[in-house]
Amino acid sequence: MQTETVIVQTLGAAGTGYVSGAAICRNLGMSRMAVWKHIDHLRALGYEIEAAPRRGYRLLTRPDRPLPTEIEPLLVTSRFGRELVYQDRVDSTNRLASALAETGATEGLTVVADAQDAGRGRLDRKWHSPPGTNLYLSVVLRPAVAPQAVPSLALATGLAVLRAIGVLCPHLHVGLKWPNDLWLDGRKLGGILCEMRSELDRVHHAIVGIGINVNALAAEWPADLAATAISLRQALGKPVSRPLLLAEILRRFEEVYDSWQRDGLKPLLPELETFSILNGRPVRVHDLAGDLTGTAVGLTPTGALLLEQPDGSRREVIAGDVRIRPA
Amino acid sequence: MQTETVIVQTLGAAGTGYVSGAAICRNLGMSRMAVWKHIDHLRALGYEIEAAPRRGYRLLTRPDRPLPTEIEPLLVTSRFGRELVYQDRVDSTNRLASALAETGATEGLTVVADAQDAGRGRLDRKWHSPPGTNLYLSVVLRPAVAPQAVPSLALATGLAVLRAIGVLCPHLHVGLKWPNDLWLDGRKLGGILCEMRSELDRVHHAIVGIGINVNALAAEWPADLAATAISLRQALGKPVSRPLLLAEILRRFEEVYDSWQRDGLKPLLPELETFSILNGRPVRVHDLAGDLTGTAVGLTPTGALLLEQPDGSRREVIAGDVRIRPA
Repeated sequence: MQTETVIVQTLGAAGTGYVSGAAICRNLGMSRMAVWKHIDHLRALGYEIEAAPRRGYRLLTRPDRPLPTEIEPLLVTSRFGRELVYQDRVDSTNRLASALAETGATEGLTVVADAQDAGRGRLDRKWHSPPGTNLYLSVVLRPAVAPQAVPSLALATGLAVLRAIGVLCPHLHVGLKWPNDLWLDGRKLGGILCEMRSELDRVHHAIVGIGINVNALAAEWPADLAATAISLRQALGKPVSRPLLLAEILRRFEEVYDSWQRDGLKPLLPELETFSILNGRPVRVHDLAGDLTGTAVGLTPTGALLLEQPDGSRREVIAGDVRIRPA
Repeated sequence: MQTETVIVQTLGAAGTGYVSGAAICRNLGMSRMAVWKHIDHLRALGYEIEAAPRRGYRLLTRPDRPLPTEIEPLLVTSRFGRELVYQDRVDSTNRLASALAETGATEGLTVVADAQDAGRGRLDRKWHSPPGTNLYLSVVLRPAVAPQAVPSLALATGLAVLRAIGVLCPHLHVGLKWPNDLWLDGRKLGGILCEMRSELDRVHHAIVGIGINVNALAAEWPADLAATAISLRQALGKPVSRPLLLAEILRRFEEVYDSWQRDGLKPLLPELETFSILNGRPVRVHDLAGDLTGTAVGLTPTGALLLEQPDGSRREVIAGDVRIRPA
């Protein structure tokens, strides 16, 4: 663990009690001055730490932000999130992760931000990313698969996020709206943005971005989103810890990713189908080729949506915008 | 046309005669000093230009390099090569084109270099790129197709290059070795490197790199390539103009690209099949999944190689390394 994570852990373990500066110095093998500098930096990050003469340091409050010092102790992954880049504000976590991947970042490097100035969804659509409430993260991946296999990763990621939310909020019925949205009570809870750089038969890197509305309150949504967006907090009536959720997402994502890279989407399909909110519904799909209507009847092992058309024929849709048609 | 291209054209049209400085000034609407600066720059590029008092300027020799001043007058395209970035040396034309695409370069922008310090082929394999002899170029593309369709662009590009070579060197039998090599007399004449940045249902950009051994001589190849590489000059016994070949490639590439973007690979397949050196041959294919043997029997509309296996079943191979097996 990073030094500052150890300091926070040590102070946290003492509860309302003090930890002497000497004990911290001994524990970390550093000078009082070095410890003081770290305490100072932790305060800048938002930790309220009291320093009392002859008694030592005491942790009063922790910041409500997805900081590495909060996330690191919760990680049970082997690679995902083990390198963690945190930013208070960033243009877009996908853009920063992509730039880091270009300069050699290893698989699993994760970018987390408290706010995004230019948060994006699929097709460059704006993703509302205010500070202090939600979760915005991107993971650098280097899958040894053909580029053609990567689009199905968005669905696998959605499944991982649903598993994680299921652990922390077991009573919520969050669904997956193909191809890349998380859906709750008929509104958008989150989304996945999967980008890649590839050549003919090799993926240089894939960047998977995840945005989840965690603790935004109804009143905080801009007017145009109030009726279509929802957060976990709105549904639960109480806030959810972002570091806990993030650590759980990274755990489930690593587990699902390893399975996906080895065996593809197929073994994940039965579980994905149970989450799919489109199954059995009449839909209209808009894609590059135009509009299609039909009934969504399932997903294919390549991640396509299986559409039964009015004439009874079936068609695979690779990607597009889907609307559920009124019955 | 760019000012310096006009100057070169004007001097070139006068043959061994002089063109007065006054005429150039009038023609271009600029001062004598400004014309002089351009002449000076042209000399730095390798043009030998004589300046004689009271007679004017005379073009003695042109540099043997694929300079914009040589290429521009030959272009008949509407977009490809209309923005032309030339470098004497570059690490890799694909890398520079990719960086320009990230910062907003429009479709058709072409990077040309006289030499590459880190020329690459598929899977990061080194591409021998000495100065003064061969052609290295990359074109920025922004196709409105699904990412899954892009791999077939490498084959379409190969076809365009074959058409161009067919115009300049009609008696050579250059073939296409799936998926991305140009082949002549059993040796490698050139290659295509197609890279892209994409998300689920959108291509941000594709970069198509083309490397062709044009005028390298047998003695110029490093020992490990002498038996496996060949240039047009080696086969023809005389050099080929790089600007002419480049302009013809851009013309054929724009024509094939527009067809490919509109109708896919299918209308191009019959012509591609006639160039395919693998057709009907026993081959061994090595890809991510392992080794396959069989007989190459054709190409599919998605650009896959159709392999007839020993048990008679047919299999589509998306990408891989192919070796022709001794019969």
